[in-house]
Amino acid sequence: MKEFAIIEHYFKQKTLSRPDVTLGIGDDCALLNMPQHQLLALSIDTLVEGLHFPVTTSAYDIGYKSLAVNLSDLAAMGAEPAWFTLALTMPKADENWLQEFSQGLFQLAQEYNLQLIGGDTTRGPLTITIQIHGFIPEKHALRRSGAKAGDRIYVSGFLGDAGLGLQIALGKIKVKADDEAYLLQRLNRPNPRVKLGLLLRNFATSAIDISDGLLADLEHILIASEVGATIRTLLIPLSDELKRNTSADEALHLALTAGDDYELCFTVPSEKEEELLTALKKENITCYCIGEITQENVLVLQDYKNDLSVKLGFEQF
Amino acid sequence: MKEFAIIEHYFKQKTLSRPDVTLGIGDDCALLNMPQHQLLALSIDTLVEGLHFPVTTSAYDIGYKSLAVNLSDLAAMGAEPAWFTLALTMPKADENWLQEFSQGLFQLAQEYNLQLIGGDTTRGPLTITIQIHGFIPEKHALRRSGAKAGDRIYVSGFLGDAGLGLQIALGKIKVKADDEAYLLQRLNRPNPRVKLGLLLRNFATSAIDISDGLLADLEHILIASEVGATIRTLLIPLSDELKRNTSADEALHLALTAGDDYELCFTVPSEKEEELLTALKKENITCYCIGEITQENVLVLQDYKNDLSVKLGFEQF
Repeated sequence: MKEFAIIEHYFKQKTLSRPDVTLGIGDDCALLNMPQHQLLALSIDTLVEGLHFPVTTSAYDIGYKSLAVNLSDLAAMGAEPAWFTLALTMPKADENWLQEFSQGLFQLAQEYNLQLIGGDTTRGPLTITIQIHGFIPEKHALRRSGAKAGDRIYVSGFLGDAGLGLQIALGKIKVKADDEAYLLQRLNRPNPRVKLGLLLRNFATSAIDISDGLLADLEHILIASEVGATIRTLLIPLSDELKRNTSADEALHLALTAGDDYELCFTVPSEKEEELLTALKKENITCYCIGEITQENVLVLQDYKNDLSVKLGFEQF
Repeated sequence: MKEFAIIEHYFKQKTLSRPDVTLGIGDDCALLNMPQHQLLALSIDTLVEGLHFPVTTSAYDIGYKSLAVNLSDLAAMGAEPAWFTLALTMPKADENWLQEFSQGLFQLAQEYNLQLIGGDTTRGPLTITIQIHGFIPEKHALRRSGAKAGDRIYVSGFLGDAGLGLQIALGKIKVKADDEAYLLQRLNRPNPRVKLGLLLRNFATSAIDISDGLLADLEHILIASEVGATIRTLLIPLSDELKRNTSADEALHLALTAGDDYELCFTVPSEKEEELLTALKKENITCYCIGEITQENVLVLQDYKNDLSVKLGFEQF
């Protein structure tokens, strides 16, 4: 296992050094100093080759995306990023692969002042597990359970791009070079909405990141909040790159179900909407209102061919 | 992925509920309340089937051991266990396997008042990653770097048992049924030395858990502390079960290099030794002095055929 010890040393050198890390990589445990009056927010996510990313994905993109999807969970909670751990299982210690993987990983880590504080490197099929840690004042946490009837439903950006990007990555469709570059970027380098999450602490009654598709993720909010929703499908933001390479039906289908976009979906009381829009404008962030929360436990999609009433999946367990 | 959602629900029901967990499984992040004036200690470990445990290992033992090796890291730091997360990758959702796995896992979790606060379940080759979290007052953390020349070196129990147990599990040797039961127990259900770790806060200058074998793990202490050591090999505690099923040479070899025993190795200043022994006796814990820390950067094994001087691996990176 000597080669794996070398790898760990290699990761250790690349990480930044935060003052709240009393002890980082290299002992039995990392030791961390929590700020007072804040909660620790944490999330763990695994990416398996061939399941969460195509086997053709570059090492750089795998490193980038592994951290991005975890940052997206912090964003959805409104938490401020702090530390992460990395459990990396790989078939062999390929120096080139590791060089690229760590570049992708640490580019994002540095952008968000995230320190790698520990990890484990083992031999096996390529699997990346990252646990991410952040801070949030207790009352400001954006849970899934706070949505109320009348709240406006927002999303933070174009949906469906990553779904079409995946079809391109798998060689199922061909599009023009510019569109391909954009759509693959959306698939492989999702932009975690951390800044938006922090801003939403003062406005949103609930939030989630869209990893499994708008319908599935919004449903989590509706179930946790015991409410329903009406979505106006014509309001769902779609990129030109998506629209010009698919039919209208297919574009909407991808936006609703494909996932992997890592935009935020959140709810805002109507009386706070104007203040939110002003704050968003000031920060140069665009969000899109796509519908509203309703009392009755159904999810209604309007403007989609005929009105379509989708039953909530309360029976999923 | 519906079957995997069911699994997560299944784990959620089995875990206990600690007052410091503001939000557990089921949102984008878990939210935790840290006690004041303590550091957060955390460690992440991955177990891969066929590498960290034989493919014949029972699901119960896999669950048990996955948590035990992580608890052992907290023990080696002197930390008090609190929460854990589980990233479980498995080829299919086999209800019987999950039932047994979770029983093994939660037996140990309950014993140590550990709450499962989050996780991720994905499809792929069987791989278990657990991150464990505990608390420790800053000045009491047992690092690897505090050993001083003259300190006594102790281990917390028999070494080499798990190494012989692995040979039995792999069908390489046969031993009597009673011995087999004991040695397999030592391999599959290591006893994390959490209570000892807490006690050592007041005594030890350094500590580590023996996962890779006494030589490799002691070497970590020596490198971090910039010291050497003399080990009297005749003092290394060996079980009767190990001794009667191997040659003396083989028993020592296993004790020094096989690992997987998860006993603690720690150093104590000679002036604190008597007080430690009294405290251990009171708690009914047996530990064994096996040598002492020296100034010169070499690790010397005494009483092993001829005196043997083993060079430290400072060049490992």
